[in-house]
Amino acid sequence: MTKRMLTDMFEWFDQENGEVAIFIPWVTTHHLQKRIVSRCHQEVNRGKKKVEVLFVENICDDPSILMENMKVKLKYAPEWKDRPLKESMQSLQTQIVKYQTKFDTINDDSFSYVKIINLRSKVICNGIFGHLPSVITTFLMSIHIGIRPVWLTTPAQFTHTDGQLSATDDGEKFRRQLPLFLQKRLPNNSDLIVFTAPDKTSSKTVEYLPWTHKIETPVLNLLSAGVCTGMSKADIANKMPEVWQKWRKDPYHFRFPSGESYEDLVYRLDPFILQLERFTVPVLVVVHDTVLQVLYSYFKNQDVTQSPLLHLPKHTIIELASARTGWTEKSFPLAKAEENI
Amino acid sequence: MTKRMLTDMFEWFDQENGEVAIFIPWVTTHHLQKRIVSRCHQEVNRGKKKVEVLFVENICDDPSILMENMKVKLKYAPEWKDRPLKESMQSLQTQIVKYQTKFDTINDDSFSYVKIINLRSKVICNGIFGHLPSVITTFLMSIHIGIRPVWLTTPAQFTHTDGQLSATDDGEKFRRQLPLFLQKRLPNNSDLIVFTAPDKTSSKTVEYLPWTHKIETPVLNLLSAGVCTGMSKADIANKMPEVWQKWRKDPYHFRFPSGESYEDLVYRLDPFILQLERFTVPVLVVVHDTVLQVLYSYFKNQDVTQSPLLHLPKHTIIELASARTGWTEKSFPLAKAEENI
Repeated sequence: MTKRMLTDMFEWFDQENGEVAIFIPWVTTHHLQKRIVSRCHQEVNRGKKKVEVLFVENICDDPSILMENMKVKLKYAPEWKDRPLKESMQSLQTQIVKYQTKFDTINDDSFSYVKIINLRSKVICNGIFGHLPSVITTFLMSIHIGIRPVWLTTPAQFTHTDGQLSATDDGEKFRRQLPLFLQKRLPNNSDLIVFTAPDKTSSKTVEYLPWTHKIETPVLNLLSAGVCTGMSKADIANKMPEVWQKWRKDPYHFRFPSGESYEDLVYRLDPFILQLERFTVPVLVVVHDTVLQVLYSYFKNQDVTQSPLLHLPKHTIIELASARTGWTEKSFPLAKAEENI
Repeated sequence: MTKRMLTDMFEWFDQENGEVAIFIPWVTTHHLQKRIVSRCHQEVNRGKKKVEVLFVENICDDPSILMENMKVKLKYAPEWKDRPLKESMQSLQTQIVKYQTKFDTINDDSFSYVKIINLRSKVICNGIFGHLPSVITTFLMSIHIGIRPVWLTTPAQFTHTDGQLSATDDGEKFRRQLPLFLQKRLPNNSDLIVFTAPDKTSSKTVEYLPWTHKIETPVLNLLSAGVCTGMSKADIANKMPEVWQKWRKDPYHFRFPSGESYEDLVYRLDPFILQLERFTVPVLVVVHDTVLQVLYSYFKNQDVTQSPLLHLPKHTIIELASARTGWTEKSFPLAKAEENI
């Protein structure tokens, strides 16, 4: 079984040009660990690409975390969810004892590994060098089982007249509804952290929020269009038809002169997304369309290269809740969107 | 002695609004560790700001690393450097044995700590939550004792005529000298990684380099001037006098409309700087003035708020070499700079 999985993995690397494979064996003995590493070394000797091995172990001996985890498993896993709780708990515990004998913790310091003990309270990293393993380690140190909502939305609509900014009718309605909505949805006595893009429309959108924890950060700046900054799509199409054509052809990879591509934006948002994963308190994020498209793709586990084509409604709160199976989504329109402003 | 140091530290937090203090005790017993933590908790109870404690331990039992470290100490530390090597080595070893009895490794998992074993080959983190401790941990996992040069420079000078880019005479001289210079300065058989800003002048500057490891990354984009992108200083002063005045008054904190401030740029460059620290092979970085100013300030350990005022010469390579006392610098002008292009 394991041998077949390893073979599949190498097919993924060789024939489908895969870059990362996650291999979850049923058992993990010292013998298997050694076999995986030596198999990867063999591949290099056969002139194929170098495959680095990073072992990840999730070790838990905290009874309260264990119990919490078992309850979640019994509630949601298809093979358990319809059986009586007490009986299931006993057979799950018997299974765990049985499997324990087939798991050896890594003790060979010539391997690269991360051991997460009691869900990130303690982390042991060995032989972690280079960019990718460091990012993986930082991610693993960020995740937790806390459940809290993340709210995403774009700024309210405003009109610019003579340098003055004033909210449209629906924009104003959205600004006023926002605190009421959040007060209703916030868990009891919970704190709220508000992140906004560093511009006036974003900060004015959250003006009526009573929570003081408001952070404006340039990491949430909209996609930089470089020399096209401030131009409308029609402007670009008219004045710089070449740029417009290239952007139309491949909106994900095309980089505006002196600016960014969506791919660059994803790279820029990476640490912010890690920060969002790390938070255990509710978070509201107010950002412009381009950034929202990328964040939404991440949480919905959608192909990020398609994010430039996502249409996300205005004056609407996207509520994401962390769940065992990823993030679940609800949408709350708080005001109509006026198009063509 | 230790008590006095702790008192000084709290004065720094309370009276000078300090945010981070690094406390290096002569001994570190379990008793002292507990005292530090309880003293910080007492401060909270007295209504002062919350001080979080992160212990960092550097543990080394690899004889080759130890020997390397002792040699460096005997060569550079003022109290050792002029004494005969053999004699010094013996007394240093005697001192180490003496001090060993006064060092207890942290074994209380209610504390936050990072243990770096044999200089980052193994790292144990406990109770690391939140942004700052994560950044510190990532930094500690990145440093190493490898010595390699980092070369910084700006792109060669080009002129733009009818959408065509051509190097000036000195720009061309710089492009041609660059590979010769690097070949001479590169350690034997060493690899070279080239990072450039993602624009034509930067990539054309490194066109003649024979090394294939060239990475264009948007993290190295010049400071985004937002709606002022592409405008010269004179243009901004004429057309947007208000923006110009604000920028002149506080060039570090002023953020261009829809763009960035230098402070934002520092934030953006943070992960790149970590990456530079992590590399054990030589690196060449070709970036525009604004980014160079920030990188240079970091490596020279200078006040980064003064970076907008730094004047760095064109067509010149800044060679930084990691040394025990920080980074040392040499400058190599490869061609004259033509001003007022």
